[in-house]
Amino acid sequence: MTKSNSGLFFEHFHVGMMLRHATPKTLTEGDVALYTALTGSRYALYSSDAFARDGDLDGAPIDPLLVFHTVFGKTVPDISLNAVANLGYAYGRFLAPVFPGDTLCAISEVIGVKENTDGKTGIVYVRTTGLNQHGEVILSYVRWVMVNKADPAAPAPKPVVPDLPDYVPAEDLPTPTPAWSKNYDQQLAGSPFGFEDFQIGECIDHIDGMTVEEAEHQLATRLYQNTAKVHFNALVQAQSRHGKRLIYGGVVISLARSLAFNGLANAAEILAINGGRHIKPLFAGDTIYAWSEVLDKAMLNQGQGALRLRLIATKNVSAHAYPGVDHPDAILEFDYWAAIPLRSSMVD
Amino acid sequence: MTKSNSGLFFEHFHVGMMLRHATPKTLTEGDVALYTALTGSRYALYSSDAFARDGDLDGAPIDPLLVFHTVFGKTVPDISLNAVANLGYAYGRFLAPVFPGDTLCAISEVIGVKENTDGKTGIVYVRTTGLNQHGEVILSYVRWVMVNKADPAAPAPKPVVPDLPDYVPAEDLPTPTPAWSKNYDQQLAGSPFGFEDFQIGECIDHIDGMTVEEAEHQLATRLYQNTAKVHFNALVQAQSRHGKRLIYGGVVISLARSLAFNGLANAAEILAINGGRHIKPLFAGDTIYAWSEVLDKAMLNQGQGALRLRLIATKNVSAHAYPGVDHPDAILEFDYWAAIPLRSSMVD
Amino acid sequence: MTKSNSGLFFEHFHVGMMLRHATPKTLTEGDVALYTALTGSRYALYSSDAFARDGDLDGAPIDPLLVFHTVFGKTVPDISLNAVANLGYAYGRFLAPVFPGDTLCAISEVIGVKENTDGKTGIVYVRTTGLNQHGEVILSYVRWVMVNKADPAAPAPKPVVPDLPDYVPAEDLPTPTPAWSKNYDQQLAGSPFGFEDFQIGECIDHIDGMTVEEAEHQLATRLYQNTAKVHFNALVQAQSRHGKRLIYGGVVISLARSLAFNGLANAAEILAINGGRHIKPLFAGDTIYAWSEVLDKAMLNQGQGALRLRLIATKNVSAHAYPGVDHPDAILEFDYWAAIPLRSSMVD
Repeated sequence: MTKSNSGLFFEHFHVGMMLRHATPKTLTEGDVALYTALTGSRYALYSSDAFARDGDLDGAPIDPLLVFHTVFGKTVPDISLNAVANLGYAYGRFLAPVFPGDTLCAISEVIGVKENTDGKTGIVYVRTTGLNQHGEVILSYVRWVMVNKADPAAPAPKPVVPDLPDYVPAEDLPTPTPAWSKNYDQQLAGSPFGFEDFQIGECIDHIDGMTVEEAEHQLATRLYQNTAKVHFNALVQAQSRHGKRLIYGGVVISLARSLAFNGLANAAEILAINGGRHIKPLFAGDTIYAWSEVLDKAMLNQGQGALRLRLIATKNVSAHAYPGVDHPDAILEFDYWAAIPLRSSMVD
Repeated sequence: MTKSNSGLFFEHFHVGMMLRHATPKTLTEGDVALYTALTGSRYALYSSDAFARDGDLDGAPIDPLLVFHTVFGKTVPDISLNAVANLGYAYGRFLAPVFPGDTLCAISEVIGVKENTDGKTGIVYVRTTGLNQHGEVILSYVRWVMVNKADPAAPAPKPVVPDLPDYVPAEDLPTPTPAWSKNYDQQLAGSPFGFEDFQIGECIDHIDGMTVEEAEHQLATRLYQNTAKVHFNALVQAQSRHGKRLIYGGVVISLARSLAFNGLANAAEILAINGGRHIKPLFAGDTIYAWSEVLDKAMLNQGQGALRLRLIATKNVSAHAYPGVDHPDAILEFDYWAAIPLRSSMVD
Repeated sequence: MTKSNSGLFFEHFHVGMMLRHATPKTLTEGDVALYTALTGSRYALYSSDAFARDGDLDGAPIDPLLVFHTVFGKTVPDISLNAVANLGYAYGRFLAPVFPGDTLCAISEVIGVKENTDGKTGIVYVRTTGLNQHGEVILSYVRWVMVNKADPAAPAPKPVVPDLPDYVPAEDLPTPTPAWSKNYDQQLAGSPFGFEDFQIGECIDHIDGMTVEEAEHQLATRLYQNTAKVHFNALVQAQSRHGKRLIYGGVVISLARSLAFNGLANAAEILAINGGRHIKPLFAGDTIYAWSEVLDKAMLNQGQGALRLRLIATKNVSAHAYPGVDHPDAILEFDYWAAIPLRSSMVD
């Protein structure tokens, strides 16, 4: 009996199946430093213990995207080792903050399966739950992936496609982690713009571009203990359609969010992921740019509101002209809610 | 008098010489995060404080290979700055666990010298001891290296070749660090296979391949404070036989062990190094694969047994066909003992 | 109103202007591990808690250069986003040690402006102060940069050029952080040479060379949260005079100081920066070498003296022949004071 894991194929998944994923990981200040070095993130809430203490916390929490990638990474050996494509995300919510020293693990439930008409692949829908060492749910999200069949002759399952909301309604948003009350230091945070300053429909160019190296995305993807082969094996990838290693989509999301600091410095905390789509792959040597559109606004408690933001990333073309998802160089559409302080919570 | 260190040459070593190495290093959660990012290691014992606490520990210990590379790194400026080749290891034992916050230093005793017939080089044998801040021995091993002579006319010393065991006998193995008793969570660990499931002679293909970049091996080797010139100086190496930078052998060992998770997830803790051989160099751009053979088995205490494993790494060729040490693309043979829980220590 | 920051241009600066910089950063053991991996630094004081405790400290402080780059990084979005060149540093003093867990922020005062005769650029002088979470000044230095004008027609300001000392006089040097008294372990530190062993005028070749990769300098510069575009955007830089990304000058300083361990292992603590000049840019693929000259000596307290050192770095040429600042391959001149134990503070 082989002792290596070759991953599950489409016909191995069935609705209701529960997968308890391997390798719990304790997130530490080491992971945080690497995340900064790999993304250039500058959101003050995640960079400074002192700043977080102003928001009634004991110290800086861990960036929700680092939490997301860590939980996601756990699921790869079970869910997507034989995936053709990561198709989408829905109804993701960050339900409790994570601090250095917390240990994360993940479970997934299969909530949908649908064979494709080619008979060689199918779509698997899973709801993944991330938990901390106390068993508290810290993250929940749905994703769907296209997975190869091991045996094309395996019979197609009864199709089950879950009914997924287009976005997380404002009333379902988690409470922001920090509480601000006339003590949010906008100068330290890097922007004077609060909740009231953003208009629905407004677009923001994040200006800067960042070129990605093979070593950088490999380091990041290994830090997340994500084992998907397409990111690491240049030898096999040379024979693939793209001819080279693909950069993990989570790396793209984090780089775009890091660029988004320039314009959205106060919208530090991601509360929910409404949806996301990796339109095209990013490769080493490419330069990533990003812009954002304000899709919606909602009042929250703790001196904050929430912005629903659509983050668009492109490669090798500046975002200055706001290239849309149909632009040939668009690579990412990421729809999320972020908390942002009210102007009344801010001090100059 | 020059204040820079050019390292010792063969004629400077004599049997009985004691070398107390410089730059003690405190290993921290930062080193652990980098080790994960650089290798992709996923062994639960070293990834999760919560998992380690199930094994009666206060938190996750530090991966023995990170300990080994750190101790080894200390010895380089004294032992192998002028080495032609790192020839082998013997009788390595991890005698006490290392936890974040511990400070390691190293001493070496020269236990053998033998000039080569060419008169230009010789072999130096050292026993290196790693100690923590309390003076406890945490690691002991023998290695031998081929070192250049500064002056070819220097007389050959009386040859002394230590009698080294082929492997660490089972009765000399250290006690495993965690203690398991019906509480080893095989799902979190990533494999259902315990001590009883492995047969002597069994071979395991670790399947995945990983392509290495210059930045990655340089970061790793600097993290270990290993200063051997051949890893860092492209300008000088362009004039060498290989024409490029060599990857430190410890990087190769760690990458192969990280790949070995897929099949040996429960054999997390390396207790002893029986021997090792860097058959050929690995270069940036190469893709490393690995497979393992079970050489022997031994019962231990603490709910565990030990597997004696031979780890073979290749470059640019899959390990699927179990290429042996004589295969033209074999680069590493590494013989070690690892602890593995008994099935009776495991819960589903 | 645009919410992105495009940085200040020359005509926006005026003498007396105070800039409070964004994104405080808590320095942790994660940053320390990355700094070691990125530079190869081996100074025992910054590598080992146990060694630092011998010097009456609670644990290892953070390398002053990591502190410098972190404070410097904070200033970039306000001071030098539109800089043409970083021209120089003066009167930098490390006024209090920084330990893991401390949070740094920075403020700058504009102390000089002078338009260039071309009418398109000008020189801005700032005094930057780094503070910890208690509001204590941990670092103060002056730097001047050449900054583009947004509008060439903007009138030239009245020129103000501050009177800057050529170096920090010995009587202005801060007290060294550790206190040594017959307990400085020279073997662990890596060199037997104390204060008395260095002569004014003496030159030291640091021997080794290190080749730099794109991923390495980008990781370092992002770790310092330095956002200067020229380091990250290959697409835009391809159109620049150099045709490629420039390596942040702070990376050059740190690599040269790391190489300087070989010869100056006991001169670990930088107390003051007298001046510095980035003579030529370093690019990925280049190999950096370094040598030092002892410019001056001064007695201090705490069992130590100070050496005033001039550190010269070159690219792609060994420092063996002590290439001077006029050598075509010289890239850095860095003039600083470092503490070094007296021989009477050392034990063998």
